[in-house]
Amino acid sequence: MQLTDLETPALIIDRERMDANIARMHRHVHGLHCSLRPHVKTAKCIEVVRRVLEGEPGGITVSTLKEAEYFFGHGLRDIVYAVGLAPNKIGHVAALIERGAALTVLIDNVSIVAPLAAAARDRPIPVLIELDVDGQRSGVAPDSALLLEVARAVAAAPGLELRGVLTHAGGSYGCRSEAALVEFAELERSGAVRAADRIQAAGIPVPVVSIGSTPSALFSRNLHGVTEVRAGVHVFQDLVIAGIGVCSVDDVALSVLVSVIGHRADRNWIITDGGWMSLSRDLGTASQPLDQAYGLVRSSEGEAPADDLIVKSTNQEHGIIAERHGNTVDLGRYPVGTLLRVLPNHACSTAAQHSQYHVVAGRSPAVQTTWSRFSGW
Amino acid sequence: MQLTDLETPALIIDRERMDANIARMHRHVHGLHCSLRPHVKTAKCIEVVRRVLEGEPGGITVSTLKEAEYFFGHGLRDIVYAVGLAPNKIGHVAALIERGAALTVLIDNVSIVAPLAAAARDRPIPVLIELDVDGQRSGVAPDSALLLEVARAVAAAPGLELRGVLTHAGGSYGCRSEAALVEFAELERSGAVRAADRIQAAGIPVPVVSIGSTPSALFSRNLHGVTEVRAGVHVFQDLVIAGIGVCSVDDVALSVLVSVIGHRADRNWIITDGGWMSLSRDLGTASQPLDQAYGLVRSSEGEAPADDLIVKSTNQEHGIIAERHGNTVDLGRYPVGTLLRVLPNHACSTAAQHSQYHVVAGRSPAVQTTWSRFSGW
Repeated sequence: MQLTDLETPALIIDRERMDANIARMHRHVHGLHCSLRPHVKTAKCIEVVRRVLEGEPGGITVSTLKEAEYFFGHGLRDIVYAVGLAPNKIGHVAALIERGAALTVLIDNVSIVAPLAAAARDRPIPVLIELDVDGQRSGVAPDSALLLEVARAVAAAPGLELRGVLTHAGGSYGCRSEAALVEFAELERSGAVRAADRIQAAGIPVPVVSIGSTPSALFSRNLHGVTEVRAGVHVFQDLVIAGIGVCSVDDVALSVLVSVIGHRADRNWIITDGGWMSLSRDLGTASQPLDQAYGLVRSSEGEAPADDLIVKSTNQEHGIIAERHGNTVDLGRYPVGTLLRVLPNHACSTAAQHSQYHVVAGRSPAVQTTWSRFSGW
Repeated sequence: MQLTDLETPALIIDRERMDANIARMHRHVHGLHCSLRPHVKTAKCIEVVRRVLEGEPGGITVSTLKEAEYFFGHGLRDIVYAVGLAPNKIGHVAALIERGAALTVLIDNVSIVAPLAAAARDRPIPVLIELDVDGQRSGVAPDSALLLEVARAVAAAPGLELRGVLTHAGGSYGCRSEAALVEFAELERSGAVRAADRIQAAGIPVPVVSIGSTPSALFSRNLHGVTEVRAGVHVFQDLVIAGIGVCSVDDVALSVLVSVIGHRADRNWIITDGGWMSLSRDLGTASQPLDQAYGLVRSSEGEAPADDLIVKSTNQEHGIIAERHGNTVDLGRYPVGTLLRVLPNHACSTAAQHSQYHVVAGRSPAVQTTWSRFSGW
């Protein structure tokens, strides 16, 4: 099968780029004498995750219980569910553990402890405490009284097993220089280690210190005291990650193949069948120095076209491509039926719009294979 | 089943509101002696579309061939595919027509005519010409020479049948007053009728004059010369539509049920498990006078809570709810486990993140039924 045999829009993985991205993270984390617990929320695909797990211990991170179910069904037992637990999911968690999953849950408050403990059956439910090191989201502060309060509540609860602490320094996505990224990575590491030390000083063991985001993971200079690093989007990379300076746009392994369906000569527009339904509504580069609007345009072989084209705007199933600065485009270069690839702002949100990946390698037009992915809860 | 039995996030339809929205459009269009060809791209669900089709001729509008396949499989034959045709979909279109679908395609250029005509088998392929009445997207201008050029090319092509003209005045979403909406609706109607008249004056019959968007459909004052109106999002309505003044927020029939999973007392934040994956990345009200960020918060019964809460920001599976103006919130009112409903900016993009609807009626916590929906191409 060739790219020209696909109906557009279609989601494409460049396997050469993906393999290089996976190898880079592996090299970096192993070079710092640590290992990776990949986050599977980006790919949601067993074929991709098996590649990421090569040479790693085999544990994964999930953002939904549907991910936990799917990957457990594919033989992966060691799973961290890295979103604060809602009470209506406790029964599902307990059932997964009963069926043999080593499923660890995340909490940041005392009120969930009693209902969680009450749901434990034969085996204790493993628990991590969520830390907030950068004020972005949920979690307890490493230096707070609340940290020890939650740790003591878990340690005292029959049916629960305190495994340790976990943090995600999402603020790393706001960094704009290598120095800032290195500093942020150290903020994440030191905050997690400090929290672990405080809990251990209170007489409670902390076997797990889990940290990670793709930017902070790749810019960490040491991982002293850390037992595992989590990252997910590094597999594909995207324009947001490139905009931070963590990779180049030529490292982005994911794209959406679209067809030219018309033109508006009076506006210098190329109209495609790649709207927000296939690209997602994510405008993640809008706050970066280089705004890529709905995505950066490449040829069907993945190379930069003659014009600096971006997807300026979208409707549900329409994309409007224009020159970045409004310069005139020779529309004759892009006749109706031309295939183009759009690099996504955010691999997680773009991939989520699709149910399969078509896998190519480099400039070859051959579709080597197709991998399923899933969505939902 | 009750709402409390669901795992969150979950997509909810309030059937009472939906039925009222459907009845309102039906009344309005029938009052103007026309009929509706509903757009099914919002709901993508046979149970919803069957309700919308009650009292209508039975034709539907689709935005993808997957929608055409699904609804044809459910017995709906008369289908307009209202996105400009890409060459790689011609074979699929011809196959659907061969199998008995009365599938009409949309074109706005001459270059697609020859390959389309070449694909016709036993029956001619019905074609509509896409018009651009408001400079928003694709289509030919009603007064252009290109209009007659495309019409003549289709009329002359063996294997094709020119059915008429179609336009979608997407610019209606930029209106900010009733007067502007009425004016826009008339711009859409008169542009389509003028184009049809020009083609007929050239000796080519134009049986179909198809117009529509939810705002322009509901604010049309006459539909002289129009043979059908298309609208889709009116079934659910949403915050964008409410922000234009076309409906009230209390008409919005779609919401995402989320759970409180934690708090950040220092920030006055309520953290939920409803992130952008369940709400979508759509920030459609950001350009309106009242920015609802990622959505407006309601109680689990669909009523306004004590505080004016919106979803201020999101991560993939986290939502951060705060008071609209940053005012202090008594977080004790929303303990961990509290269920809330989030009204979406854009029903099409939020629904697209889910594979099923849970149907309730008004304030009752009973889930009456669950309907499947689909995504993809």
